Amino acid sequence: MQIANHLKKMKPSYIREILSTANTDGIISLAGGLPASSHLPIELIQHNLSSTFREPKLFQYGETAGYLPLLEHLKQQYPVSDTHKSFITTGSQQALDLIARAFLNTGDGVVVEAPSYLGALQVFELAQANIISIEQTKNGPDLNKLETTFASGKVKLFYAVPDFHNPTGAVWSLETRQQVAELCKIYNIALMEDAPYRELRFSGQDLPLVSSFCPQHSWVLRSFSKIAFPGIRLGFATGPKDLIEPLIKVKQAADLHSSIPMQAVLLDLLRHPSFNAHLKGLCELYHERYQALALALSHSLSADFSFEAVEGGMFLWLKTPGKKPIQLAQAALKKGVAIVPGSVFYQHHSNSSPAIRLNFSNSDPKQLQEAVQRLAQVLC
Amino acid sequence: MQIANHLKKMKPSYIREILSTANTDGIISLAGGLPASSHLPIELIQHNLSSTFREPKLFQYGETAGYLPLLEHLKQQYPVSDTHKSFITTGSQQALDLIARAFLNTGDGVVVEAPSYLGALQVFELAQANIISIEQTKNGPDLNKLETTFASGKVKLFYAVPDFHNPTGAVWSLETRQQVAELCKIYNIALMEDAPYRELRFSGQDLPLVSSFCPQHSWVLRSFSKIAFPGIRLGFATGPKDLIEPLIKVKQAADLHSSIPMQAVLLDLLRHPSFNAHLKGLCELYHERYQALALALSHSLSADFSFEAVEGGMFLWLKTPGKKPIQLAQAALKKGVAIVPGSVFYQHHSNSSPAIRLNFSNSDPKQLQEAVQRLAQVLC
Repeated sequence: MQIANHLKKMKPSYIREILSTANTDGIISLAGGLPASSHLPIELIQHNLSSTFREPKLFQYGETAGYLPLLEHLKQQYPVSDTHKSFITTGSQQALDLIARAFLNTGDGVVVEAPSYLGALQVFELAQANIISIEQTKNGPDLNKLETTFASGKVKLFYAVPDFHNPTGAVWSLETRQQVAELCKIYNIALMEDAPYRELRFSGQDLPLVSSFCPQHSWVLRSFSKIAFPGIRLGFATGPKDLIEPLIKVKQAADLHSSIPMQAVLLDLLRHPSFNAHLKGLCELYHERYQALALALSHSLSADFSFEAVEGGMFLWLKTPGKKPIQLAQAALKKGVAIVPGSVFYQHHSNSSPAIRLNFSNSDPKQLQEAVQRLAQVLC
Repeated sequence: MQIANHLKKMKPSYIREILSTANTDGIISLAGGLPASSHLPIELIQHNLSSTFREPKLFQYGETAGYLPLLEHLKQQYPVSDTHKSFITTGSQQALDLIARAFLNTGDGVVVEAPSYLGALQVFELAQANIISIEQTKNGPDLNKLETTFASGKVKLFYAVPDFHNPTGAVWSLETRQQVAELCKIYNIALMEDAPYRELRFSGQDLPLVSSFCPQHSWVLRSFSKIAFPGIRLGFATGPKDLIEPLIKVKQAADLHSSIPMQAVLLDLLRHPSFNAHLKGLCELYHERYQALALALSHSLSADFSFEAVEGGMFLWLKTPGKKPIQLAQAALKKGVAIVPGSVFYQHHSNSSPAIRLNFSNSDPKQLQEAVQRLAQVLC
């Protein structure tokens, strides 16, 4: 039987495919976007486990919007706009997918940064959107190009990762945040502000959410994969009522609701008196790992291979002029290091500048140094 | 912002909406498809909880197809065709949605039984399929009408619940199973065999899966909501490789994978030496509850209101000639009993014969008797 036409266009995830290979013995993986396996806050969920897992109501069907005590906690603990409503998703990936399914007709325009998160590109391809890529500068998207594109009248949504961007690690400046919000209001574009790395700042100053400047024109997508556990598949999305209710309606058909016992376990974690210390420790750990990676790259590679310093998140974007990233990734894998070629983060691979994405959150400094040694053999 | 066109056609779930009301104090709910809250196998998951919740690898990202030890267990424990591949879904609802998204183009023909599971109708509406309803007889779908429809060349999928149908409780006869399978092979139609209630037989003889007669033309959708816990949102789907791999690709974009700790907890439950006894106990309990409901209906209602005996599952389908089911449901709710009007299970409400769906799995005999007393006041 023939698959649906829209599926024929969707690329499989290079990253999820390389993750299987990268688990092989002896390979150091800088490929995934995995939090540190050694620092998952597993201890902080033990105290209440046996009572949580004895509550029958957590095991029955629940509300599609999510487990009410968790929703109430999130409302108190996260800076959510007064006009925003929240609901729980099966990972923030699901929020992306629900937005695309609830709001996009075939051919509707979606603006993305170039490069951009691969999982978002997949979702927009599946929705048969018209994906328009806007080049990223050091401070965020190129604002002139963004305005010209918005002004074309062909754009419905703008997908962006303003904090510790995946794959580049870039952070939008305050001015860019304000201007993008203004443009969204002027041209009536809905912003999908994807913020999975926002809590992972290890230097510099926190900046307000872009959506705080245009709350009626935005969703904020949050993930618990980076600050808690990816395996539990939980995230949450906020937005004005008229942008959230259609998502809950699609979620009914997609999976009815997300796992309730997992939501209760997550709530126990978020309420734990040591959760903030865990988060602080995670940022310190990633800072140390980032510094080890940056130092090793500066020592071992020629000045041709440069990168912008990052202030948080999980990724460093190494420019590799004159090298073909896909071939580079294959050669690196043979030497025992898994990386992601930058080209996979572009809708059209051919438009990309040569670069590779390096993850520093899930390898210790020694592994990072060894990985760079192996990479240097390929890059020389 | 305008929602997508396909969402405008999708009906919200009457059942999920009534479930909120039905939780009000004093209401006896025969509305949901909930397993008995008093008999959830919570004790059987306690023994291994603390060790499961200390395994870091369960909390990292996992494979999209599912947690491997669970997949291996399912392969051994369930009668899966040799040519079928399995994968885990976020409830069997997700399997329905993934099939529709991976295989249906706008306007593709999908045959459903009339009446049919509402969550499936929602999924096919969202996929903008051409939904074709075939009347259900006592032994399954009307085979002549089914063949004529298949022969039109406009059908791609056939969605069916051959065991303890939702909402009618009907079971397809062996002959119907063989003939439907034959028709699927002749006309190259893929059968979606939805089997959430299959293990809940309390009288009569087990019959082979329809898909066992046409394994290359079918998916089997299994749910753990009825035999384990709905709240954990886990199911699994099997099918030939070319029908399963596209679903896994869409699942990447939909939610990456289902919760791994929940999959590990489910595996502990399925492996527990007392799990089969739990299942047997559940069937006995539902048998007793069904008998209490059937007896109360026969005693309290006039012979105008009839029903077919059921051999398992959770539902009884009460015919209410001359009564409008939606008004009946509203009047019943005022008297303190929640039921589902049969019309919501039809794509076009106007085509339905007057009936209501009564759930007997989540109320004890006394509650069922009281519910029927209240219902009798409305039906007289």
